[in-house]
Amino acid sequence: MEFSAEDATRSDWDFLARVVESAISNGASTINLPDTVGYTVPGKMAELIAYMREKVPNADQAVFSVHCHNDLGMAVANSISAIAAGAGQIECAVNGLGERAGNASLEEIVMALKTRKDHYRADCRVDTTQLYRTSRLVYGIIGMNPPMNKPIVGANAFAHESGIHQHGVMANKETYEIMTPESVGLTQNKMVLGKHSGRHAFEARARDLGYVLTDDEVKGFFEDFKRMCDLKKTVTDSDIEAIISSKIAAGQGLYRLARFDLQSGNKVKSTCAVQLEKEGSILEDVALGDGPVNAAFNAVDKLTGPQSRKLLDYAIHSISQGEDALGEVAVKVQDGKRRVTGRGLSVDIMEASILAYINAINKLAEMGERYDEEVSPEFGNP
Amino acid sequence: MEFSAEDATRSDWDFLARVVESAISNGASTINLPDTVGYTVPGKMAELIAYMREKVPNADQAVFSVHCHNDLGMAVANSISAIAAGAGQIECAVNGLGERAGNASLEEIVMALKTRKDHYRADCRVDTTQLYRTSRLVYGIIGMNPPMNKPIVGANAFAHESGIHQHGVMANKETYEIMTPESVGLTQNKMVLGKHSGRHAFEARARDLGYVLTDDEVKGFFEDFKRMCDLKKTVTDSDIEAIISSKIAAGQGLYRLARFDLQSGNKVKSTCAVQLEKEGSILEDVALGDGPVNAAFNAVDKLTGPQSRKLLDYAIHSISQGEDALGEVAVKVQDGKRRVTGRGLSVDIMEASILAYINAINKLAEMGERYDEEVSPEFGNP
Repeated sequence: MEFSAEDATRSDWDFLARVVESAISNGASTINLPDTVGYTVPGKMAELIAYMREKVPNADQAVFSVHCHNDLGMAVANSISAIAAGAGQIECAVNGLGERAGNASLEEIVMALKTRKDHYRADCRVDTTQLYRTSRLVYGIIGMNPPMNKPIVGANAFAHESGIHQHGVMANKETYEIMTPESVGLTQNKMVLGKHSGRHAFEARARDLGYVLTDDEVKGFFEDFKRMCDLKKTVTDSDIEAIISSKIAAGQGLYRLARFDLQSGNKVKSTCAVQLEKEGSILEDVALGDGPVNAAFNAVDKLTGPQSRKLLDYAIHSISQGEDALGEVAVKVQDGKRRVTGRGLSVDIMEASILAYINAINKLAEMGERYDEEVSPEFGNP
Repeated sequence: MEFSAEDATRSDWDFLARVVESAISNGASTINLPDTVGYTVPGKMAELIAYMREKVPNADQAVFSVHCHNDLGMAVANSISAIAAGAGQIECAVNGLGERAGNASLEEIVMALKTRKDHYRADCRVDTTQLYRTSRLVYGIIGMNPPMNKPIVGANAFAHESGIHQHGVMANKETYEIMTPESVGLTQNKMVLGKHSGRHAFEARARDLGYVLTDDEVKGFFEDFKRMCDLKKTVTDSDIEAIISSKIAAGQGLYRLARFDLQSGNKVKSTCAVQLEKEGSILEDVALGDGPVNAAFNAVDKLTGPQSRKLLDYAIHSISQGEDALGEVAVKVQDGKRRVTGRGLSVDIMEASILAYINAINKLAEMGERYDEEVSPEFGNP
């Protein structure tokens, strides 16, 4: 049983100690002391844990835990300093996602514990080689890219720019690398795949990247891979990860995009004709719009009505790098009280947009009338 | 004179103390002790400062400074703990940008000092109401969005999602708000501007947002604003900020987009016809491409050759929120050894792409053959 005292860091510590004592004597085996508004600082957090362990007579019968928010950018340091003071549990989140500025970032805490084991003398059983892939998957689900300077998982996290550093790393890795890219599961592009690569090479690479796939999945992903090879000169590991993780997150559905034809420009209204496949038959219609995305979505609306749907948000970002980068679109669509996120991925940003919208509509169709309450992502309390 | 000892936190402290003493006696008035690889932890950083102030006989003749990297997510906490131990200078960066996982984030340090003045008893002369705008401008220049959960400046930083928190904030702001949105310069949308707003209303709003504009600039931005009103139902503060800060960063140039006409789809090659204005005359051509962006760029290439240019990177993201969100495209283009970033902004993602590419070409044209060495953004050492 876990007992959690919201806003513990700003509470009266003496009163809090009496509450904690009572919680433990009533059966709480974990005592969570959240820094609900991200107000505390590392030294204070350590003091709080030490205070409780000293003042609460039955403190040894429970594990102390912290739940830190990142409003002033110190959630990771606050969590780690709690561990140094004797906390045995940290509540954190992949990529630090959470209410407002978020919670302590799981991957940063894990790597700080591993890298500074000499100092903290604490450990956890997280397999660090899964951190990179897990982070990408979670960012993918919410339709966001890792910030390039995000510790551990950002594109620049292991990139040494300055000449003197590069020289140092080449001479002796430990000069500037306190942890290796491999330790967090970042693989190098050892083999470049392209249009002449066969299914076995693709399957082997996916396995190297950590994906355990069924035969049907391999077949489906390989088709996507071949299509991508027609559009990109070389397909990198991050492209393959993007295909697989986006498909895993997106699933299948009622409608499938067969064809679209777009006419657009800055002096004309945009026009988009869309063909959708639905249960074996082809639906087709055309629509005008303000801009190409609006025209395409209007055409999809005509084919999939009735029109109680509302597009709440449209976000686009590029996933891989270079001239033929993959674009990923995330749309948030509301229908009555149901709210879903759809995602689409393509080297063609218009196709990515249409795929995302269809994905959202498929999710709504699958849901049926199941939800009569608003469905929205709930980020952590306390 | 500032003396900086690279990788100070991992050095032999005793030896370091002797080096620092010598630097001060030779005239150094600032002693910088960088945590070059982001290895240290708050307690240790405080110890280092205290150690130097105690062991270096002439320590009182210099200001101690730290320069923290964020590899383990603790740059802000490490910097702040140095202040608590007597450091008088912090080297940090807007948005925490810097090599690898970056440096300590200026806005987080400033707000931590202000918010926890009771604890740190230190201050700085930064005008906090400029933090939000400065952050957006810097993100804009590098073509990046603030991560939604970035402390202080992210879209969610002040958004209370959970019901109990919202109730608390309504009852008493201080319950969950340790700092106000206004204190970092986040203004509320008090007045919505639209197609019936005049130039004076626009100018007043820009002034409220902190932009001091010349008459010519007001005229130019107002035209962009009116065009945006044709495409968006309402124009928000963040739209206006996006228009102005993107224009300020992008400048003017040799080529201007007059018109484009695009045909695209998933079963046909894309075609794009482009008209550019160059010194009063109109150039026009059409090109095929793999996808709409590629076709448009090929057409621009035909009009602006010779073709030693290479597109290194293409990145797109949405700036404002909602159905008619602004898209911003950043392209990195190389010509010989010159390398530039171009940016384009529009509610039409195709137009944003073409504008970004033209912006890059204009920058190259303006440069001429001035640079024979590679120009690339240099992020901070040590």
